[in-house]
Amino acid sequence: MFRFSVLIACFLVQYSSILMAQSAAKKFTLVIHGGAGVITRANLSSEREQEYHRALDSALRIGYAILEQGGTSMNAVEKVVNYLEDNPLFNAGIGAVYTADGTHELDAAIMDGKTLAAGAVAAVKRIKNPISLARLVMEKSEHVMLIGEGAEKFAQTQNITLVPNTLFDTPARKRALERIQQEEREQATKDSIKQDSIRKANLKKRSASDKHGTVGAVALDIHGNLAAATSTGGMTNKRFGRVGDAPIIGAGTYANNGSCAVSATGWGEYFIRTVVAHDVAALVEYKGLSVQSAGQEVINKVGKLGGDGGMIILDTKGNFSMPFNSEGMYRGVITQENKPTTAIFK
Amino acid sequence: MFRFSVLIACFLVQYSSILMAQSAAKKFTLVIHGGAGVITRANLSSEREQEYHRALDSALRIGYAILEQGGTSMNAVEKVVNYLEDNPLFNAGIGAVYTADGTHELDAAIMDGKTLAAGAVAAVKRIKNPISLARLVMEKSEHVMLIGEGAEKFAQTQNITLVPNTLFDTPARKRALERIQQEEREQATKDSIKQDSIRKANLKKRSASDKHGTVGAVALDIHGNLAAATSTGGMTNKRFGRVGDAPIIGAGTYANNGSCAVSATGWGEYFIRTVVAHDVAALVEYKGLSVQSAGQEVINKVGKLGGDGGMIILDTKGNFSMPFNSEGMYRGVITQENKPTTAIFK
Repeated sequence: MFRFSVLIACFLVQYSSILMAQSAAKKFTLVIHGGAGVITRANLSSEREQEYHRALDSALRIGYAILEQGGTSMNAVEKVVNYLEDNPLFNAGIGAVYTADGTHELDAAIMDGKTLAAGAVAAVKRIKNPISLARLVMEKSEHVMLIGEGAEKFAQTQNITLVPNTLFDTPARKRALERIQQEEREQATKDSIKQDSIRKANLKKRSASDKHGTVGAVALDIHGNLAAATSTGGMTNKRFGRVGDAPIIGAGTYANNGSCAVSATGWGEYFIRTVVAHDVAALVEYKGLSVQSAGQEVINKVGKLGGDGGMIILDTKGNFSMPFNSEGMYRGVITQENKPTTAIFK
Repeated sequence: MFRFSVLIACFLVQYSSILMAQSAAKKFTLVIHGGAGVITRANLSSEREQEYHRALDSALRIGYAILEQGGTSMNAVEKVVNYLEDNPLFNAGIGAVYTADGTHELDAAIMDGKTLAAGAVAAVKRIKNPISLARLVMEKSEHVMLIGEGAEKFAQTQNITLVPNTLFDTPARKRALERIQQEEREQATKDSIKQDSIRKANLKKRSASDKHGTVGAVALDIHGNLAAATSTGGMTNKRFGRVGDAPIIGAGTYANNGSCAVSATGWGEYFIRTVVAHDVAALVEYKGLSVQSAGQEVINKVGKLGGDGGMIILDTKGNFSMPFNSEGMYRGVITQENKPTTAIFK
């Protein structure tokens, strides 16, 4: 009887440790964002607000389905960003903002925290899902960053069908372009000699209302690997082949199993100068800061320079953080517990 | 007599402290590079070697003249890089390598360590001195990074005359392109089914011989401010609008008075993935490493991933470091003592 009890006890101990190992192994997290900026209850109808919550929820469920099946964080962030690119609510893919010329130029980057492999594309005009092209650059080319028509030529070697640039048109973004261009014309009339301070104040105002669209995802899979992905149409009325932080490895996108994964969204120029994503990772790795403290410290640096925006951060223990110094950031989180949460305001 | 002696002593003390203050204030340093790679005594004739030393020496003297007069580190790095861009010995500006299409696409970036302002251009074809355009992007546009034809349109708004792309042609670089394309054709015949490992080995070989050209400068001026600048033609036979690390703030170029200034040269893809320049700065700022230790640690990371190259690093105390894991790096240093030193091999 004693021997039998010991046997049962041993079995139970072993079984529960298997269960624990399984549940430990099954731990995963996905954090997403859909842009940051001036998003007040006043300028967002309750109906529109619900649309955003539903879209973020759908994105989280797509990632959950992949991660729950043991899929990689790379697959999760790519597919989640694909969904956000295809959704006209967000400034990436369909729904991307307009350039000054009335076209769309898309940027994206992806990074694998396990291998530090990375891929990025900038100023592509005929790629439906730039994040997937960024992944092909990473996996199928010798390069990390390809831009413009060159990137599209590479896409064709990978059997990606080019789409017309008008595919990305949406009436809401068109109205935003027209409004901004009208404002600029009025301003130019008011100040026939444009003063630098006025120009900068205008830019800041414009930034606050129309510049911050980006989508991104960071994920930790059950294998313990991190990945980050960011995709964007950039800023409304952009000129001169302007590239923001999204496709810059270290600025808008970074992933490293040794520190954390980061996807940023905000006034790109400030995020490039602050090397935001890598700075967060460096504070985590070299100063031992939590993802919360590191994120807050770097957002403060951006704010000090005069920039605004936010980011999502995730480490290999599943700790995450979503700091922003703008009025709102579309965001959401899901873990192995399958309880998606989404938020917009502070 | 005693009173007179005291007076004299006081005068001497005061005078010497003025002298000391002047000499402390006059402290400045300039470090430059002209690319890293396989540079062996076997493939570099002694005559050619002397040409490189003379060119590096001339570059140092240009920077010295600016810094000695109290000029800013920003002016020094710009003018030094202008000289290297105009010198056909180096892969930047005139003497830039050829793309697969037989043209030249130039990249450059500049950063001010005092303000963290930065400017970058990529894939420009008709700009004689890309580093000066990068500075205009920083000072005269709302942006940090402009690419391709857009960057050239911006240049025209700044009264920069566009030059024909053939201005950058040199017979030596043309032969390098032809040699590489011939090698690729031979390889393609040998391996009708190109295996990934072979392709990668070829790339590595090619990298070793033709990829590492870049020029750069970091400077500390008598006002205590750092600056960094990098300019390049990229890699021979590049395709698809490939962008390397040079114009990426944080990868090939970074300056911050709070840590150090860095300009890198090497196999760009690895330098982007390692976020080389910002990683060095982060190790200096967050871990308190010297510029020597930080540089070595980051070059080791690049090497571990399979990449090679080098960089120049300078802090606000005038400490500098020039680590590289390739066989050689064209480099030089000059300080307020006006003793230019140049080197190529280890």
